[in-house]
Amino acid sequence: MARKIVIIGAGAAGVSAAASARRVDREAEITLVTEEPYPAYSRCGLPFVLGREIPSFKDLILYPQDFYRMMKLNLLLETKAIELKPSSRIVEVKGKDGVVKSLDYDSLIVATGARASKPPIRGVDKSGVHLVRTISDCEGIERQIERSRSAVVIGAGLVGLEVASALKERNLKVTVVELLEHVLPMMLDQDMAKIVHEHLTGNGIDVIVGKGVDEIVGDTSVSGVSVGGSKIDADMVILAAGVKPEVELVRKAGGEIGRTGCIRTGIRMQTSIDGVYAAGDCAETTNMITGKPFAPQLGTTAVRQGRVAGVNAAGGYSTLTGVLGSAVTRLLDLEIGQAGLTERRAKEVGFKPVVGAVTAKTRAHYYPGGKDIRVKVVVEPESGRVIGAQIIGGEEVTQRVNMVSIAIQKGLTAYEVANIDTCYSPPVADYWEPFVTAVEMALRKM
Amino acid sequence: MARKIVIIGAGAAGVSAAASARRVDREAEITLVTEEPYPAYSRCGLPFVLGREIPSFKDLILYPQDFYRMMKLNLLLETKAIELKPSSRIVEVKGKDGVVKSLDYDSLIVATGARASKPPIRGVDKSGVHLVRTISDCEGIERQIERSRSAVVIGAGLVGLEVASALKERNLKVTVVELLEHVLPMMLDQDMAKIVHEHLTGNGIDVIVGKGVDEIVGDTSVSGVSVGGSKIDADMVILAAGVKPEVELVRKAGGEIGRTGCIRTGIRMQTSIDGVYAAGDCAETTNMITGKPFAPQLGTTAVRQGRVAGVNAAGGYSTLTGVLGSAVTRLLDLEIGQAGLTERRAKEVGFKPVVGAVTAKTRAHYYPGGKDIRVKVVVEPESGRVIGAQIIGGEEVTQRVNMVSIAIQKGLTAYEVANIDTCYSPPVADYWEPFVTAVEMALRKM
Repeated sequence: MARKIVIIGAGAAGVSAAASARRVDREAEITLVTEEPYPAYSRCGLPFVLGREIPSFKDLILYPQDFYRMMKLNLLLETKAIELKPSSRIVEVKGKDGVVKSLDYDSLIVATGARASKPPIRGVDKSGVHLVRTISDCEGIERQIERSRSAVVIGAGLVGLEVASALKERNLKVTVVELLEHVLPMMLDQDMAKIVHEHLTGNGIDVIVGKGVDEIVGDTSVSGVSVGGSKIDADMVILAAGVKPEVELVRKAGGEIGRTGCIRTGIRMQTSIDGVYAAGDCAETTNMITGKPFAPQLGTTAVRQGRVAGVNAAGGYSTLTGVLGSAVTRLLDLEIGQAGLTERRAKEVGFKPVVGAVTAKTRAHYYPGGKDIRVKVVVEPESGRVIGAQIIGGEEVTQRVNMVSIAIQKGLTAYEVANIDTCYSPPVADYWEPFVTAVEMALRKM
Repeated sequence: MARKIVIIGAGAAGVSAAASARRVDREAEITLVTEEPYPAYSRCGLPFVLGREIPSFKDLILYPQDFYRMMKLNLLLETKAIELKPSSRIVEVKGKDGVVKSLDYDSLIVATGARASKPPIRGVDKSGVHLVRTISDCEGIERQIERSRSAVVIGAGLVGLEVASALKERNLKVTVVELLEHVLPMMLDQDMAKIVHEHLTGNGIDVIVGKGVDEIVGDTSVSGVSVGGSKIDADMVILAAGVKPEVELVRKAGGEIGRTGCIRTGIRMQTSIDGVYAAGDCAETTNMITGKPFAPQLGTTAVRQGRVAGVNAAGGYSTLTGVLGSAVTRLLDLEIGQAGLTERRAKEVGFKPVVGAVTAKTRAHYYPGGKDIRVKVVVEPESGRVIGAQIIGGEEVTQRVNMVSIAIQKGLTAYEVANIDTCYSPPVADYWEPFVTAVEMALRKM
């Protein structure tokens, strides 16, 4: 009899899992369940639709309906998984019409993702306050942009700054408020964050760091926020204060939740419940450098976890022993990327890192139009290994992050990096690669 | 007494050697000798000046005169080394004024580079026929562009195609003639070269492959070339048929010349003559993958060799155990890069390679403006190691080549590459990195 695979969540992880499962088992019955009215779409693309870089939310939908037919996937839209009964291998789901159905499974993949956090700020439920997680959240933002002149974004992480940049592109007056000491606090050290901070303010975005929002003010709808005693006027407020993993389905069924708040998984993405796998923003993995539980909440991690879960759920063999959590974005023409640990994070976990940093050009110095690029590297002095890098520049950042990412993952020492053979041509790079130069700066301190 | 270091050649290798030597020994007397009227400049930039991407030849000069003073380097311009007398540690040089001087040395670094080859074609000495090696060669080309309507470029290697693209940018009718089967024969396999070929012809450059030029025709000055019996009209002819290393100084002094025609060197860039080092286009090194002698004639290799030679010549310790010869260029907005061995070269040296290739986009598929990128990888099936890659695309090629380059140098297997953690953001990359996807294609054949 055909294997029954049920996947809860049809985001990047869920669909990646479905496609991989299908490749392993051509006969399996695969059902994808999602609460949303759309099948898989790219959440990472949402801010870029708001900024009008991408024409429409519909463009973010990853596959046409044909894909689901071709892959023989049953797609249940606007359907919520309400209870998991592991002993009978059943998951109960409730459709848009309120009818509850029982789906039995041989393998279940929980790819329920995360929901945007609603911070406990007074006034958070006023009209004009928006989360940024789903297409319908962003359709709400889109509608309000048309009738707004100013916005406050709460949270200066990746999503917060991407939305702030988008709103600026749409000619709103934008203020970003970040509780922690600097922008992109998980991704960058303070010295590197300063470059981003200045880039944002140079482009007319007000940035307040080290302060929380005391209250969202206004009658029924937002008129501003109060920060450290002073009021900032705003017609809309965006909450970009992180996400909470959706783990209740598994928790209630007795599954283990890890220290990160995500579902604990093994190297095959199996949960503590037999026959149940987890993948995506709801699932924990391991940080390659620290060996500790890790939940980087990235699309790239989600698709990798999804693939491994899908293969195993279909009876194949695949493992994920860890991820690095490399990330990149582009904010108002500035590219910002990171791989491995920041200096601060490295210290927090107990390393005594040595750092090196350099500012260079993205093209030969004599080739017009080259842009500044700054590279900071973090080296662990006992092993000599490169354990982190942050790169900020006007172009050519992404693939540099990938290069660094490979170096870190494969345990290259600073000495090895100093001898790598890079390529060069005047319009696209200079003789000496700045990643290598930054590592040499660190080596001089060792 | 201060150590005396003489460096013959003030190109990329020579100046890199001088700067490194100075860092090791602050007291040494360092003399740089060059036949050219300019100190170190970037030869790689020459075609881009012809194409008007870089304003002037003067922009290519790597350092201002101040640099040489600051580094306390004696710079002898328009001076030729005529004889090396290793037993007395003297090198004789002849200045512009014809006066011969003896320079004694403790360490000598031969960084004489290479000269452009003049192929044995009838009519090669006619007026209107140009080499492309020095600023003065290119000043000659520049003067003739003004009064020319059409050009034939002989040789479709990197320099030939860069000059052909530049002449096209200058609105000449351009024909490229390549004796071998396809363009960029050392850098690409035929299937990948086809993309470049079509890009060139699509931009109005005529490309003839698999045929040699029988004769350069015209009275005293060029009127065209004869190829396979038919005549191609041209007001100018560019010879870009490779280079010959300048090794006579060392050969005549009894130094060993390797199989590549370049000066044989050890891992410290020492030649077979005591106290004499070599670096740059005249010096052999080792190919990291094949372990065989190698002379890739690249600026990046030259500066690495120069650095190692400089450190050792000054009494320090530095080694270069091999290079990969990663290369990149940009031709009329198409970026072309390569690292390691092509499929063809891999077979020539005895491997039985497995290949994988994929065409992807440089941005998320839903993000407007993404450009095609094609990646081909070469995998050695016994070890599973990735041993080569070719990448062609509209953007984001260079740092991908560097990523691949690290993977190859550090011996990553295809399985390891399939699991690397890359980064992603809609405007700059898609979820799955095409290098990884191409490797997965190869894996399926193993």
